[in-house]
Amino acid sequence: MKIGFAQFSPIFGDKKVNIQKIEELITSIKANIIVLPEMCTTGYMVSARDELKSLAETIRGETVKNISRIAKQNNCCLIFGMPELCGNKIFSTAVAIGPSGILAKHQKSHLFLKEKLLFDKGTTKPTLFKWRGVKIGLGVCYDYMFPEYWRALALKDADLFCNTANFVFDYGFKMMQARSIENGVFSITVNRIGEERGQKFSGGSEIIDNRGRALLKADNFECVSIVDVDIRKSRNKKWNKYNDLLSDRRTDLYF
Amino acid sequence: MKIGFAQFSPIFGDKKVNIQKIEELITSIKANIIVLPEMCTTGYMVSARDELKSLAETIRGETVKNISRIAKQNNCCLIFGMPELCGNKIFSTAVAIGPSGILAKHQKSHLFLKEKLLFDKGTTKPTLFKWRGVKIGLGVCYDYMFPEYWRALALKDADLFCNTANFVFDYGFKMMQARSIENGVFSITVNRIGEERGQKFSGGSEIIDNRGRALLKADNFECVSIVDVDIRKSRNKKWNKYNDLLSDRRTDLYF
Repeated sequence: MKIGFAQFSPIFGDKKVNIQKIEELITSIKANIIVLPEMCTTGYMVSARDELKSLAETIRGETVKNISRIAKQNNCCLIFGMPELCGNKIFSTAVAIGPSGILAKHQKSHLFLKEKLLFDKGTTKPTLFKWRGVKIGLGVCYDYMFPEYWRALALKDADLFCNTANFVFDYGFKMMQARSIENGVFSITVNRIGEERGQKFSGGSEIIDNRGRALLKADNFECVSIVDVDIRKSRNKKWNKYNDLLSDRRTDLYF
Repeated sequence: MKIGFAQFSPIFGDKKVNIQKIEELITSIKANIIVLPEMCTTGYMVSARDELKSLAETIRGETVKNISRIAKQNNCCLIFGMPELCGNKIFSTAVAIGPSGILAKHQKSHLFLKEKLLFDKGTTKPTLFKWRGVKIGLGVCYDYMFPEYWRALALKDADLFCNTANFVFDYGFKMMQARSIENGVFSITVNRIGEERGQKFSGGSEIIDNRGRALLKADNFECVSIVDVDIRKSRNKKWNKYNDLLSDRRTDLYF
């Protein structure tokens, strides 16, 4: 299965241009799954709730329609982040879209910094969606910090963790690598590049295999990259003849 | 508080020489807490249960008496690993000893490779002991892989994680750093050096602060090293004005 990511520098507030950029990147490569950054159709550095509201849409809105069209044209699964309007609430949501439309969504569980003033805390529980025989779990950025979240996905038999991110902080890749190692699950972590309202983003998107090895690591440039890999290897939790990452857990002891 | 580690190459089966080495190392430095490797009084590469039994002792035995004497002479807390005889069972146990004797013990919860054929699975739950106003949690080697174990210690307000290890595998330091970051807790991870029955050990012992920074990193030589640091900083779980590592957990969502 060809899995990968596209990292770029979204233009704040210009959905049209950002969706064009996504289309250009996606169309340039043949892939089964491509992960994009958090809030990549709108930009990230929102300054107030009103401004955020003006950028947010429901997942029946134009943004999802446009990304669905790109997914259909390229016969792939696209995972991207957008501000999701849901009644009076606004979530930072990762949406997975296949050729036939929405496959899943995940509302950021763990808000970081001033997101706490702007967004609502996600209400979606850790859940997987199926795509061409593999099981995928979604996370958004700072969700990386909480092992419980990813463990819950692993215990449901995740083959792949996808983290759509805008890192303003140094720990994301290190911690997603740890999530891959401790759960034996492939991961794709995507960070944007560029500068927005004084905040710099440093890219470095990566794909980690089920034993923690970096299969792809981007630098700080616009790029789209894929690897062709059997992510069902995540189903083998045995490090060796004696050790199994999940059944070795001492649930009789911990809490 | 002066915290540190001593790494060396134990001589297989020669408790007398190993304890002499420990005494020499500990006496050479002034410290409040020193962590030593797993199975460092006996050596590690045991080939059969009978051999292991011949090396194991209860924690009322000569080994603990000797280490207690060294702790008393140096007025410090020593944490080291030994094979513990407990009725018919044998555990790979980390023991913490202060000037007045045993402070705590932890029997390795997660056995690795052929340890599963030799040792019994630990029965001690994640617990802390208090030493000079700080709270310390113990782990042995492969315990690093399981975030639940360290989270349980963090939720009981651990100031310091101490992992006595003999790494035959590459992930230990990376994962203990992740445990420090996700829990906001200082950690000391100690790996032995030398070669034993064909198995090489590469040292690299380290002290990580409550935000994941390496305060000390050893190379592959015999050494004893300390830092003077306020490990009560572990009690501050706030990365910033908005984020708290423990209270940000979405326990309403995970399981």
